Amino acid sequence: MNRVEKVTRIMNSEGVDACLISDMYAIDYLLGYKNHPGERLYVLLIKKDGSLTLFLNKMFFVDQPIDASLVWYSDNEDKTALLASYLEDVLVLGVDKSWPARFLLPLQKQCSKIEFVDGSIFIDCVRMVKDIDEQVVMQEASKINDQAMHHAISLCAKDYNEKQVSSELLSFYTEKGASEFSFSPIVAFGKNAANPHHVTDESLPQVGDSIILDIGCVFMDYCSDMTRTVFYKEVSEEARVVYETVKQANLAAIAMIKPGVKLCDIDKAARDVIEEAGYGKYFTHRLGHFIGRECHEFGDVASTFDIEVVPGMIFSIEPGIYLQDNLGVRIEDLVMVTPDGCIVLNEYPKDLLIIS
Amino acid sequence: MNRVEKVTRIMNSEGVDACLISDMYAIDYLLGYKNHPGERLYVLLIKKDGSLTLFLNKMFFVDQPIDASLVWYSDNEDKTALLASYLEDVLVLGVDKSWPARFLLPLQKQCSKIEFVDGSIFIDCVRMVKDIDEQVVMQEASKINDQAMHHAISLCAKDYNEKQVSSELLSFYTEKGASEFSFSPIVAFGKNAANPHHVTDESLPQVGDSIILDIGCVFMDYCSDMTRTVFYKEVSEEARVVYETVKQANLAAIAMIKPGVKLCDIDKAARDVIEEAGYGKYFTHRLGHFIGRECHEFGDVASTFDIEVVPGMIFSIEPGIYLQDNLGVRIEDLVMVTPDGCIVLNEYPKDLLIIS
Repeated sequence: MNRVEKVTRIMNSEGVDACLISDMYAIDYLLGYKNHPGERLYVLLIKKDGSLTLFLNKMFFVDQPIDASLVWYSDNEDKTALLASYLEDVLVLGVDKSWPARFLLPLQKQCSKIEFVDGSIFIDCVRMVKDIDEQVVMQEASKINDQAMHHAISLCAKDYNEKQVSSELLSFYTEKGASEFSFSPIVAFGKNAANPHHVTDESLPQVGDSIILDIGCVFMDYCSDMTRTVFYKEVSEEARVVYETVKQANLAAIAMIKPGVKLCDIDKAARDVIEEAGYGKYFTHRLGHFIGRECHEFGDVASTFDIEVVPGMIFSIEPGIYLQDNLGVRIEDLVMVTPDGCIVLNEYPKDLLIIS
Repeated sequence: MNRVEKVTRIMNSEGVDACLISDMYAIDYLLGYKNHPGERLYVLLIKKDGSLTLFLNKMFFVDQPIDASLVWYSDNEDKTALLASYLEDVLVLGVDKSWPARFLLPLQKQCSKIEFVDGSIFIDCVRMVKDIDEQVVMQEASKINDQAMHHAISLCAKDYNEKQVSSELLSFYTEKGASEFSFSPIVAFGKNAANPHHVTDESLPQVGDSIILDIGCVFMDYCSDMTRTVFYKEVSEEARVVYETVKQANLAAIAMIKPGVKLCDIDKAARDVIEEAGYGKYFTHRLGHFIGRECHEFGDVASTFDIEVVPGMIFSIEPGIYLQDNLGVRIEDLVMVTPDGCIVLNEYPKDLLIIS
């Protein structure tokens, strides 16, 4: 069954007549056509019979065959009316979860009899399970990331500041065949490491600092994402305890992953380790997220996701402890579920490392 | 009048009771607080009486006073119900034009009596006109960009490939005090330059190629954006004609800018030059866009925008001609409207340049 068939099978079982998909990654996933529409309308209409219609602005470039009917519009056209004219037989319409209000509100006004529902979920469910080609590419993307981590840590030891490490990384990835960052790298020294969403600045490491490196690249359209935490010149007793706790949480979660285990239980395994060590309230986020063409794809390793994992799923395992104004530790790997367990895609070691 | 007052004055005149603003740039613009919410809910509720309520996930970091009531939620909470509880007195609600369907659809379901309208426009109108602090920073951002253009062109002359030029630029911007790209730079050689949205690759320039460099940085939170087109080693007669046409279009548009002139007429001035030269159908996009904290802000220099410019507006003027599989030429400057005309923020020359 091809990807579109998998999607329409779910649509039919959910009673949805058509979906408007705007996410460029989802469209590329289904059609093998990449486009960067900017703020312009760009949607794929999938009807429940499997017919595909792609709406394109006349200034988009198409230099390949596309397995869909193409409908071109110009900047000055009434795009809402155009879309509506293709929806006359539709009662329940799925729209992309990321579709912005500036398109959705006018379409709702024009098509007041249609029931609008979340349509991304039908594609997201299919995208959660990577096929064999995707698995191979993602393993390679993580191999590049392992090398980049080695390089980034060596730069920290050379007293590069946060921003310098980050900008040096881009060149490194490019040399290795990656096309870009999969997200703005987080390079956070000391106190900054205690903020899980610190924006990289010009800080230099101080003796005793924990250094969080959360980095990833895009290789052949697929993302890598990993985090290591190292210490600058020395490590306090408290920091050592925090580090070992996070590492045990990471390992405990990974050890239990195999088909049939629920995402929420994987989250709990890591959270239990951290709670037992007395740091529960400092682990302030979900354990992990799904990843593929986008760095954060649908699906969380979190208490709110009770679905069972199946072979081919790839997600992150990233427990962390953040002691405000003091230190932060996070250890993140990507894992791929296999028929009898999982493979950890990142090989960079997790033993406590002091750099100098 | 402060920024929030300007916004609520428009809301009141339009009969809107409240707005939910999710755009992180708009929130920063109004509150002076920066946050990168990722996919998590992050909205500012502005009521017509000027009261402000900011909804934050418990894992967001706040290390400064914020001039709004703060409402914290956790990942596992019902965010739709939480928002709805603050909207009981609201009949007409503006929502952000970029607010995604995954938040909007559930809120519409929960608050079925509320009329939802585009609420961004009230802030966008205010943001179109830069205050004096913003003007100073944006002039500086464009000065850095002028230097970066000089550097990028020198790299092309040294036979760097497209990607190498691009990655080298990031280091250059960082050294000059900019924080990041304002968009992924477009560095396009030859045929690639004929695609206005070419994705930078490993191409090397060939003799006779046009090279489009469309680059920009973020400096103190504000964007620069400029384009120059140069030729590699030689220039054909046709390319010279195309270049001079685009340059005249750029100059003709800039020459007419002063308070009271309409955006659509500025677009027409440039378009007329290109049409008269017989290349009308190869100028496939609007003449320009507004810019500020975001590289593309609300407001186009296009036939569809008939508003009159006022002092403090900053936008791009970027005519282009794209001859598929042959060459592309675009010349882009940022301009700032003044009481008696405009200032061009980019000083890098526009005379035809052949590099070797």
